[in-house]
Amino acid sequence: MGKTFNFGAGPAKIPEAVMEKAQKEFLNYNGTTGISVLEMSHRSSDFGNIVSSTKKLLRDEMQIPGNYEILLLHGGGTGQFAGIPLNLRAFSKNSESPTADYAVTGSWSNGAAKEAEKYLTVKKVFDAKAPFLGAPIGNTWKRDPDAAYLYYCSNETIHGVEFPHAPETLPDIPLVADVSSNVLSRNFDFTNHGVVFCGTQKNLGAAGLTIAIVREDLIGKHHPFTPAILSYDEMHKNNSLFNTPSTYSIYLTHLVLEWIRDIGGVKKLEELNAQKSQLLYETIDNSGNFFVNNVQKDFRSRMNIPFHVGSVEGKPELEAEFLKKATAAGMIGLKGHRSVGGIRASIYNSVTMEETQKLVDFMKFFQSSHSD
Amino acid sequence: MGKTFNFGAGPAKIPEAVMEKAQKEFLNYNGTTGISVLEMSHRSSDFGNIVSSTKKLLRDEMQIPGNYEILLLHGGGTGQFAGIPLNLRAFSKNSESPTADYAVTGSWSNGAAKEAEKYLTVKKVFDAKAPFLGAPIGNTWKRDPDAAYLYYCSNETIHGVEFPHAPETLPDIPLVADVSSNVLSRNFDFTNHGVVFCGTQKNLGAAGLTIAIVREDLIGKHHPFTPAILSYDEMHKNNSLFNTPSTYSIYLTHLVLEWIRDIGGVKKLEELNAQKSQLLYETIDNSGNFFVNNVQKDFRSRMNIPFHVGSVEGKPELEAEFLKKATAAGMIGLKGHRSVGGIRASIYNSVTMEETQKLVDFMKFFQSSHSD
Repeated sequence: MGKTFNFGAGPAKIPEAVMEKAQKEFLNYNGTTGISVLEMSHRSSDFGNIVSSTKKLLRDEMQIPGNYEILLLHGGGTGQFAGIPLNLRAFSKNSESPTADYAVTGSWSNGAAKEAEKYLTVKKVFDAKAPFLGAPIGNTWKRDPDAAYLYYCSNETIHGVEFPHAPETLPDIPLVADVSSNVLSRNFDFTNHGVVFCGTQKNLGAAGLTIAIVREDLIGKHHPFTPAILSYDEMHKNNSLFNTPSTYSIYLTHLVLEWIRDIGGVKKLEELNAQKSQLLYETIDNSGNFFVNNVQKDFRSRMNIPFHVGSVEGKPELEAEFLKKATAAGMIGLKGHRSVGGIRASIYNSVTMEETQKLVDFMKFFQSSHSD
Repeated sequence: MGKTFNFGAGPAKIPEAVMEKAQKEFLNYNGTTGISVLEMSHRSSDFGNIVSSTKKLLRDEMQIPGNYEILLLHGGGTGQFAGIPLNLRAFSKNSESPTADYAVTGSWSNGAAKEAEKYLTVKKVFDAKAPFLGAPIGNTWKRDPDAAYLYYCSNETIHGVEFPHAPETLPDIPLVADVSSNVLSRNFDFTNHGVVFCGTQKNLGAAGLTIAIVREDLIGKHHPFTPAILSYDEMHKNNSLFNTPSTYSIYLTHLVLEWIRDIGGVKKLEELNAQKSQLLYETIDNSGNFFVNNVQKDFRSRMNIPFHVGSVEGKPELEAEFLKKATAAGMIGLKGHRSVGGIRASIYNSVTMEETQKLVDFMKFFQSSHSD
């Protein structure tokens, strides 16, 4: 069997070096403990070191300012869809009927807005209906001065829509960013942000861990109905060990962060991701509409690149053949999300230039074999 | 370095056979996929098969009746401490001010009661103050006929207090059981139960997965503030794939369930656990108060066996020496929980009779070296 090329959207490819190290010490962490990380008490000194080192590496690599706390949580990004309004609703200037602003640029921000409606009045400053072709950056948005926060998803995994920089917000209204699918793939500016969160299963390791980076002054005013596992205050007071966390996912994120540091950090990754995505978009744009990506160029994702084959809406039989032949060539995870169809190539930090080139070569060969 | 004997309370020892299989297919699941389970989409057919097989195995091995749904959730047992009242409070006959009954037999049921107070009026039918020496089984409890449910923890990990069978409840008031630390260690009778839940990091694999087994008629009346990740209704409607679950933890639980099936199921494990715990308690009880366990005999845990060394309250310097020498002999995880001190031996399903014997031999040797 040849090598498998994983272009899945998440859980996704983990860097080879990380997987090899994890396998090597799978039964005996660090070669000295005699047990696996999986079997280790979350209150042991070995695991305590993993937690503190993970937080330090994340702070260093992401350049997180000192007035932000790093919380290691349960529940995935979807847990935060509830956690955000539960923790922040008290910051709305409308105490009778708290509100928050949401920029809906795709499925994930849409899902976040829907969940938030359980807890406050959601106002959509932007609502990109399908096919979610992009987002203006905020200077035309009608923002609510009473909003507890302005929410956005920095990269929409399904629609391939990425903010090139954070949207503008009103003074004193913090931004909340879901960075699940582009964390540490490019420089991130924390200015104006209140909460920055992500699941780790795309760019930072495995499923099961959620990281919330929360500005200190926003901790402690959660709604009384906030479950402890979603309460920034309760988790912070207990150094994210209020209860047993997803220990192995934390360990894998630690290894991924070491890998990021060792290959040259986010600066290096940003360069690589620009090159990889440029190669793919050029292949698409130079195909004479054989491959089509409709996203506004300024908002095209460098992580998730959806496209259709054969026409703007895609020809289903051609796309099915594309997927079948790609799978036969060892390239998996290329099927577009069921809500939008087509093809999607996810090229997270772990996907190399060589792997991207392999996909591009296949695309060109596929096109040439259908151009007679 | 000699073998390490892991008597930790959780995350805990995972059966050797499970760990070896997991390591073997760590980089290439099933030897055919070319990728790790860690890198697999939760919506792939391979992972879908793992989910459905996990649920089937659990239903078979635990003999779960057909009118219960199995939900694979986030958040640990602590997540359920909020999830239970959020999902069930509407079943209280007091709709103005919902109530629930709690049997507090140790730290975990105490923590569950505390979290539940966020959402309803908690009435404690039993409140064992420290040192939590056991629990009457319920026929003397003053139960509230309006209670939404009667909550108990089937095995208190910290205090070593285990219910020999479920407590009695009033007609129409469902029992809710936290079985995190003794699931599948003995036969479990679902009669009268509404919800049975556990974290998987003690007897079923790794941290990160929470299993809730919920009677169908209790699904769908959750409070509007229930986060989706804790909503039985939303998780059930999406076959526990509402969002990305802790995929690797599910995989490990699947392997542990296969192991349980292959060694003879819960019947075999119940026999082994009776033998292992009997050996340890006999060693304690026959030590002439050199080792002391204070729990009422009917309520002594077969999974977690706390004891003091030197006297009823324990002699700190002797206990420190015990731990130091045990560690030197490769036996780890024996320190009692920080809230109660002393020693605790956790002998979950994965801990063998030979390992238990090794600990007993050490205890006898330690005593003999202090009996002059």
